[in-house]
Amino acid sequence: MLAVQVVDYGKPWEVVRTMEATEPPSPPPGQLKVKLLAAPIHPADLLLMRGLYGKRPSLPMGMGGEGVASVVDVGEGTDFKRGDRVIIPYGHDTWADHLTISAKRAVKVPAGIDDAQASMAMINPFTARLMLTDFVDLAPGEFVIQNAANSGVGRAVIAIAKARGLRTVNVVRRPELIDELKAAGGDVVLVDGQDLPKRVAAATGSAPIRLGLEGVAGEAMRSLTGTVAEGGKLVVYAGMSAQPAVAFPPHLIFRDLTIRGFWLIKWFRSADPRLVAEIQHEVLPLIADGSIKVPVEHIYPLSSAREAISHAARAKGKILFTAS
Amino acid sequence: MLAVQVVDYGKPWEVVRTMEATEPPSPPPGQLKVKLLAAPIHPADLLLMRGLYGKRPSLPMGMGGEGVASVVDVGEGTDFKRGDRVIIPYGHDTWADHLTISAKRAVKVPAGIDDAQASMAMINPFTARLMLTDFVDLAPGEFVIQNAANSGVGRAVIAIAKARGLRTVNVVRRPELIDELKAAGGDVVLVDGQDLPKRVAAATGSAPIRLGLEGVAGEAMRSLTGTVAEGGKLVVYAGMSAQPAVAFPPHLIFRDLTIRGFWLIKWFRSADPRLVAEIQHEVLPLIADGSIKVPVEHIYPLSSAREAISHAARAKGKILFTAS
Repeated sequence: MLAVQVVDYGKPWEVVRTMEATEPPSPPPGQLKVKLLAAPIHPADLLLMRGLYGKRPSLPMGMGGEGVASVVDVGEGTDFKRGDRVIIPYGHDTWADHLTISAKRAVKVPAGIDDAQASMAMINPFTARLMLTDFVDLAPGEFVIQNAANSGVGRAVIAIAKARGLRTVNVVRRPELIDELKAAGGDVVLVDGQDLPKRVAAATGSAPIRLGLEGVAGEAMRSLTGTVAEGGKLVVYAGMSAQPAVAFPPHLIFRDLTIRGFWLIKWFRSADPRLVAEIQHEVLPLIADGSIKVPVEHIYPLSSAREAISHAARAKGKILFTAS
Repeated sequence: MLAVQVVDYGKPWEVVRTMEATEPPSPPPGQLKVKLLAAPIHPADLLLMRGLYGKRPSLPMGMGGEGVASVVDVGEGTDFKRGDRVIIPYGHDTWADHLTISAKRAVKVPAGIDDAQASMAMINPFTARLMLTDFVDLAPGEFVIQNAANSGVGRAVIAIAKARGLRTVNVVRRPELIDELKAAGGDVVLVDGQDLPKRVAAATGSAPIRLGLEGVAGEAMRSLTGTVAEGGKLVVYAGMSAQPAVAFPPHLIFRDLTIRGFWLIKWFRSADPRLVAEIQHEVLPLIADGSIKVPVEHIYPLSSAREAISHAARAKGKILFTAS
């Protein structure tokens, strides 16, 4: 079988290879042998290949943070059968034709979710869900504000917040996204700019916003920081602008703001598997009913790793792998 | 008697006036009438006059955040006598010839402390003490790192940390300060620069530093952020560079940092008077033995408010007021 590996740290399309790997044998009790249906290429994967991510494993390293697969062989004592579609649990290198996974930690994919959307059920929706719950105890009706509202995480924030009775203020940089994000369930959608705090106040009736989700950094972050209420929190999960994280000291000092980083990988390292399952069962129905939907641009076989990675580095929609 | 007032928001030396005010009568029971000995002009006072501070009182407003005074008249039921020197409690406009203060909240100044140093016993030392205790529970021997180490707060941090058995890494911008701050008790003193984290690790034996105190913002803040250990906190109390607060998103995200603002005025608004007294009794001995010592540049009478303020805006040392 084939698997994608990274043999050096550097430009992603130069350091990635598709290698011949040993196909897993029949699974032991409690395990499943699965065949990859879809696995996304995330910006974090490209950072990892460049050596700029929060971890730097020894080389060569397998790749892929999440995916969906089809059961091809079943170990004893499991409830799955061949052909079942499952979300691959956290901790596997998913860019491979076949994997052996734990039946207990695998979650069946509900009917009505296509492979592509199912393959992205974990990283972005989990990031969104945990940022909404683990930093500020928000009450139904409260607003949360985010920039990068059009990103995978941003769209998951809109859907999960709505399902939880929260309201979202969504900041984007391109006006043509306003209607699209409103249709996706965003309560308020605004284009970023100097007077953002005033426009946010006007759109929300000056409701205090205690949580801001920051994915852009740079001036966009300074702008967002000005919209968060006294005592509020700003959670930084990405820096898409490749600019530094920026805030205005008087906002921090006089308004008692807290800026926190959030990294899903760290959360997963000590996560209770029951909580993981609980969040999956919160998220999957939102994918099934179309509330969370990530635009897909192209799907490549693992044999075309370089082409796929190169495309991912410039794509607007999502690039996925499937088994070769 | 004379008192300093601000009659508009604008350039401090243009909006400040010395006005004739009514001298307080004999004090009621439990109160003291005092005459000002010394009250400092802080950068925060200048920000307040410019309308750029965290509060914007209606005008005209009295001024001055702290000071030391001599008792001139004693209300019934107090333990003070005429001539006693007292720290003026928080909440008075101290730039005035005479004030009436609560005897219960006044603290006698120990012998051996001059008026100038006594007048600065509150704002900077309290900021230093509270930042050292209220954000991270540090154990004796642990390092704390700060920039602006040469500031009033920075020097108080060095002395208070030492008295508490903590060690300090002090970051400055001018190499000529190294010997001076080491003599003042700084364990490590380094000049800021790109490779600061490496030099800090070398100087501390790579000890994890869980608390950073940030008074500069801009690139100095990004530099400091790189020195704080995973899960650590950076407390922002000032932005002396007048630059934005800056951090590197991967530091925030992958190293799970927290950035917090700290504003002493907010703390005072709900502070337990017993805790205020406790901190005063921690700080005053450090001023008495010279561990905390702020260089004083000039002392003006209240009648020379414009000259004093104008000087303060460009001074290297501290400018103080005394009664006219």
